[in-house]
Amino acid sequence: MKLLRVGDLGQEKPAILDDAGVIRDLSAHVADIDGDFFANGNPEKIAALDLNSLPVLDNNLRKGAVISKVGKFICVGLNYADHAAESGMDVPSEPVLFMKATSSIIGPNDTVLMPPKSEKSDWEVELGVVIGKETKYVSEADALDHVAGYCVVNDLSEREFQIEKEGQWCKGKGCDTFGPIGPYLVTTDEVTDSNELDIWLELNGERVQDGNTRTMVYKVPFLVSYISQFMSLQPGDIISTGTPPGVGLGFNPPKYLKEGDVMRLGIDGLGEQQQKVERYKA
Amino acid sequence: MKLLRVGDLGQEKPAILDDAGVIRDLSAHVADIDGDFFANGNPEKIAALDLNSLPVLDNNLRKGAVISKVGKFICVGLNYADHAAESGMDVPSEPVLFMKATSSIIGPNDTVLMPPKSEKSDWEVELGVVIGKETKYVSEADALDHVAGYCVVNDLSEREFQIEKEGQWCKGKGCDTFGPIGPYLVTTDEVTDSNELDIWLELNGERVQDGNTRTMVYKVPFLVSYISQFMSLQPGDIISTGTPPGVGLGFNPPKYLKEGDVMRLGIDGLGEQQQKVERYKA
Repeated sequence: MKLLRVGDLGQEKPAILDDAGVIRDLSAHVADIDGDFFANGNPEKIAALDLNSLPVLDNNLRKGAVISKVGKFICVGLNYADHAAESGMDVPSEPVLFMKATSSIIGPNDTVLMPPKSEKSDWEVELGVVIGKETKYVSEADALDHVAGYCVVNDLSEREFQIEKEGQWCKGKGCDTFGPIGPYLVTTDEVTDSNELDIWLELNGERVQDGNTRTMVYKVPFLVSYISQFMSLQPGDIISTGTPPGVGLGFNPPKYLKEGDVMRLGIDGLGEQQQKVERYKA
Repeated sequence: MKLLRVGDLGQEKPAILDDAGVIRDLSAHVADIDGDFFANGNPEKIAALDLNSLPVLDNNLRKGAVISKVGKFICVGLNYADHAAESGMDVPSEPVLFMKATSSIIGPNDTVLMPPKSEKSDWEVELGVVIGKETKYVSEADALDHVAGYCVVNDLSEREFQIEKEGQWCKGKGCDTFGPIGPYLVTTDEVTDSNELDIWLELNGERVQDGNTRTMVYKVPFLVSYISQFMSLQPGDIISTGTPPGVGLGFNPPKYLKEGDVMRLGIDGLGEQQQKVERYKA
């Protein structure tokens, strides 16, 4: 199923996209799409509903981030060999992890606001993995049992903040609006193979990232298992699994976002995002 | 005032320590000590209560982390010149920031569980700053208006995970139980000068860290202002401001935690923590 959250910021209703592409209101059945939603077995409850009986929501309503009250937003760095190369770095011998401030999360089509002094804001389309149950020292074989679903993430990155200041990367990763998530949380039963998904991003109509998850160095089951050796994962946590080549930092010379730019990005079967770029004014 | 949370894990009641050292139950007046508590003006409401009218809670009840539903747990690295030296690193030209998984948070006297494969678990007593209101591009002059209070933090760190694996530091900082916070959240009105506080940690009765916040390189108002240039802060977020010298990594040879160890740590006026060390068994 394709779960989503629609409505104004802070007022989003839980919803589901039916097979005809109609958005149906789930708010009579569940409080929200969040960690508790998965922890409390709601996916099975929703799957048993007759979707035609649910109220229709306007397709033009704003879409919120696909999951609310995210506890941790964990990212994997340099997880596509050709992206590592364009960043001037080696493929790491084990996954590089960093954390993105949860306050960076926005809806998939919300406006991205560059910080007032940012000159090196950059894009990164990524496959997001949403955790469905408590996960601690899980084996690679059991890891997918802990995944609720997948979504598109734009892991926006301010390269000066990330790389040119004293560490760590979180400085350039957690700016407000730098974490669009959505439009849908697609449950695992609908994703036949997370290692065979086209993943792309267009800047002002030009395709700058054009990859496939098959070139990920570390795959989803390994990543979930690996991360769970360092910290436990809770329902609603998000793992963003790294970006394919084509980010602004990799251009020669580098190319960064400017006011008025439009990013459009997507992953096979997980939907598309579109963000306009503006600058935050205090 | 000294706010705290007492009771079993997940069942903690909001409480206040009165001048006689008696713990009083606040649960008839507020739902919890969390970001909403501060965002909704509850400190003023609590200050107006006659504490003698509040039910007494048993002093021997477990103490929980002083604040619940923490959104971000942001740490400052190498913020005491002599700790940077013992770590073999230079004092950074601007603050080093990293994020600690919020799932690492525990009560001040809960058991610390080393990960199964950990051989280099280490201690770090730190001054914690709790944010009281939304903070975004705040000036240094206005920063303290955004601080709700202070607390003791033990920023436990697995040095192999933090330093010897592919980055970033978050791998060694966010292990479950690696973030004891408390016993009290002491509101700013009771802390005359956060730059003049003794800060210490004893391992099995031996004082290994014995510092004072006056030797912090970057002070609290600067840190709050600085961090708010990269990401917004919300009520209930915690900033842990770095540790004075005397961590295990700085010993020659290094000295790390082992099962059965006891850490006792404190800061002037903010109370004391005590944790026994055990090892997590899956």
